Amino acid sequence: MGDGKRDNSEALKPQAYLKEKQSRVEEALARFLPAEDVFPPVIFRAMRHSVLAGGKRLRPILCMAAAEAVGGEAETVLPVACALEFIHTYSLIHDDLPAMDDDDLRRGRPTSHKVFGEDIAILAGDALLTEAFHLLSRSDWRATLPPERLLAVIHDIAAAAGFRGMVGGQVVDVQSAGKAVDRETLHYIHTRKTGAMIVVSVRAGAILAGAAADAVAALTAYGEQAGLAFQISDDILNVEGDARRLGKTTGSDAARGKITYPALMGLAASKRKTRRLVRQAVTSLKDFDHRADPLRWIATYIIQRQS
Amino acid sequence: MGDGKRDNSEALKPQAYLKEKQSRVEEALARFLPAEDVFPPVIFRAMRHSVLAGGKRLRPILCMAAAEAVGGEAETVLPVACALEFIHTYSLIHDDLPAMDDDDLRRGRPTSHKVFGEDIAILAGDALLTEAFHLLSRSDWRATLPPERLLAVIHDIAAAAGFRGMVGGQVVDVQSAGKAVDRETLHYIHTRKTGAMIVVSVRAGAILAGAAADAVAALTAYGEQAGLAFQISDDILNVEGDARRLGKTTGSDAARGKITYPALMGLAASKRKTRRLVRQAVTSLKDFDHRADPLRWIATYIIQRQS
Repeated sequence: MGDGKRDNSEALKPQAYLKEKQSRVEEALARFLPAEDVFPPVIFRAMRHSVLAGGKRLRPILCMAAAEAVGGEAETVLPVACALEFIHTYSLIHDDLPAMDDDDLRRGRPTSHKVFGEDIAILAGDALLTEAFHLLSRSDWRATLPPERLLAVIHDIAAAAGFRGMVGGQVVDVQSAGKAVDRETLHYIHTRKTGAMIVVSVRAGAILAGAAADAVAALTAYGEQAGLAFQISDDILNVEGDARRLGKTTGSDAARGKITYPALMGLAASKRKTRRLVRQAVTSLKDFDHRADPLRWIATYIIQRQS
Repeated sequence: MGDGKRDNSEALKPQAYLKEKQSRVEEALARFLPAEDVFPPVIFRAMRHSVLAGGKRLRPILCMAAAEAVGGEAETVLPVACALEFIHTYSLIHDDLPAMDDDDLRRGRPTSHKVFGEDIAILAGDALLTEAFHLLSRSDWRATLPPERLLAVIHDIAAAAGFRGMVGGQVVDVQSAGKAVDRETLHYIHTRKTGAMIVVSVRAGAILAGAAADAVAALTAYGEQAGLAFQISDDILNVEGDARRLGKTTGSDAARGKITYPALMGLAASKRKTRRLVRQAVTSLKDFDHRADPLRWIATYIIQRQS
């Protein structure tokens, strides 16, 4: 077509899939969050401000796509997908606090503490983390999500979100700011701070859909590879991306003294590493049929957005 | 006896019970917390600093005593009791932050952010809240704590800890500081901020021990009455108690512009209200046999410590 857009049904399919899933997630997040007119209103405004600020919804979509890849229903795992997004959002609110990264903007909007003050931002994060476990343990899903399986997933998610995963990664991240950091430490930060929640998103979807142990293992490998690729590509975008697309300032990591893959191993090597990880992620899915295509698309999308 | 101590086996029994339970909790908390030599050490030091700082262990003991009151084993609910203490401790760490109450001392020791910095204090709180749900969902207790019951308790605890309970109470508390507050608002703060977790501690013990619905209802009433009595007596101690026993400065609530029951309704009326609530709490247990005695002792202890 004359305007340069591709009219290719194969290329549109991934976009249509992601868009459809994204809108299911947006609808469910709004439904699972408390209304704004309950007392005390400020905490609900703060929770909604950060959760409903857009974003890729990568973790919920990975959770649903993993359930589908093993023959399950995306709709069944939707509450778990939303709980994962609550936890992701709480971590962003706390990461942005003045005592942490001190960020004023997130996805192009003022961060929670800029709008509501530090005290309410801390409490909004606390409320979202707690609400994730409230949502996960609701009796509404007992008919489709067996208690034993749900408990195993709650355990997995808590491991990924806590000091074994995300919190542990953030601790090392804040302690490394402005210091010379080696590759091992950077790898530790990335696999914990971002990687753990991405891996558990994939695992949760698969486990809840009743996947066999070998399928869960393959999907775990996929999650580890795609998760790390995603984080390195985020580093690359921070160096050379455009600020409008990221919703934050380009080069902000460097300005803050944060170590990144491009800074440590160079831009070209970082891009090569991303491509290699995405190939490995796709290879991890070799025993899955077409129902794992969305997971393959998501991995490929990671390379596309950085090129 | 010559030194004025009472040598009365009936009077010693409650003390012996509480002391024995306290030491079981201390031992289990230390065991359930990660060791300090795991990477990154600072987060584990911070978690242990606040959890192992002593304290009455009221919530864990209430949980165990409620299980015993309905014929269950205290030992069986010990992990849940410890998870409740993790959540209580996380809330203290975040409440003490400069953006909240800005407290330098807690139980006579420097608060988390004074020792580890604000960033690590926020993350230590986050880690403890998350670890509570990790502990609750461990497969180790499946033999003694049925999954369906455990999920119901996880749901109850998340409700009590989040915006419906503790976080909601703290939001109204920080927003009320320095303002004229009416009785209704003070009641809202007390029942949410402290009351909700005390009530759920009692309920969790009873539900996990397989209590019938009417027993759970009676114990819920006990928890509400004893919980509010406990909070009002804390207010009273803050006004007239001695600083050494509290581990914080007497009159600190007033200095900070925080409203308290004594400030709102007077000291004498506050003490009368506490005594009435404790009587009601004991009456709520009228259909329970001697196995509920520890719950009766705990309620009575609330009056004793303020006289």
